Amino acid sequence: MTVFGVDPGTVITGYGIIRYSGNEVSWISSGIIKPPPADDMANRITFIYENLEKELKFHTPDEFAIETSFYGKNVQSALKIGYVRGVSLLAAVKSGIQPSEYSPREVKKAVVGKGSASKQQVQYMVQKLLGIGNKKLRLDESDALAIAICHAFKLKSFTPRSSSWKDFIESNPDRIVG
Amino acid sequence: MTVFGVDPGTVITGYGIIRYSGNEVSWISSGIIKPPPADDMANRITFIYENLEKELKFHTPDEFAIETSFYGKNVQSALKIGYVRGVSLLAAVKSGIQPSEYSPREVKKAVVGKGSASKQQVQYMVQKLLGIGNKKLRLDESDALAIAICHAFKLKSFTPRSSSWKDFIESNPDRIVG
Repeated sequence: MTVFGVDPGTVITGYGIIRYSGNEVSWISSGIIKPPPADDMANRITFIYENLEKELKFHTPDEFAIETSFYGKNVQSALKIGYVRGVSLLAAVKSGIQPSEYSPREVKKAVVGKGSASKQQVQYMVQKLLGIGNKKLRLDESDALAIAICHAFKLKSFTPRSSSWKDFIESNPDRIVG
Repeated sequence: MTVFGVDPGTVITGYGIIRYSGNEVSWISSGIIKPPPADDMANRITFIYENLEKELKFHTPDEFAIETSFYGKNVQSALKIGYVRGVSLLAAVKSGIQPSEYSPREVKKAVVGKGSASKQQVQYMVQKLLGIGNKKLRLDESDALAIAICHAFKLKSFTPRSSSWKDFIESNPDRIVG
């Protein structure tokens, strides 16, 4: 099973595709989408949409996950992030996948075990879990991969083999960060 | 010249198409897009996108205008409105039109002459300007038509015939609300 993760942003949108099988997650692809900075918002989000559409067509993932909550207080920032999330959700549905949404806290908790983990901690665990310790990922890429991993773990927690978080933790002791 | 106006909303999105020629604006079409209430956000915005896309393909307008600012304080509402605006802007760019954006104040000022006008006042003036006094428009429809009219007036204000608001008011005494 493959999962497509998106970390939406008006300046940089990260994406990452992972394979998930048994107890293993592995890296397939990841990258960033950076619209021309001089473009206005309408053209930026079109650029993001078309690039996501292209990646989705190429990788044909089974699942799609996106970071969704917004913890800031700035209404104008929320509006802009909404533009990018809107076209990202549309790209998922148009490619035939029902998107799943996770808050930054859920993603951090799933990957690092701590909802308040730093982006660097997330990056470290993402590279460790995916076995790509030597590859230097950009933070937007590792965040997108973290979202995909979070979704894979949530899917897994619904399988009979590990039906609760307790089972999940017992079967994945290496994912507990002290 | 035809203008497509959109009043984006997660529950109801209004749209309206007007013809603009010389000093006259006239009604071509208007309606509302109401996604199934039980649908989740991703499916709702896909529904809105696909319906806007259909109307744009049918009417092939020259211009596209959308209400853009958000005056509320609720970040989650701003995020949701952003979803709908994002896919609306995308629909415009994908149909080959560079969208123009106006704040609710700008629209009210252009149509009623007062930035703080009520929705009912806007509706009254829209029906009067478009010569459709007997047709009962829904508020989301009249708001979308008001956005289209606002854009037509702004375009006009850049023509040599009436290059300033002073000229505009002088040549449109009927648009001044006492």
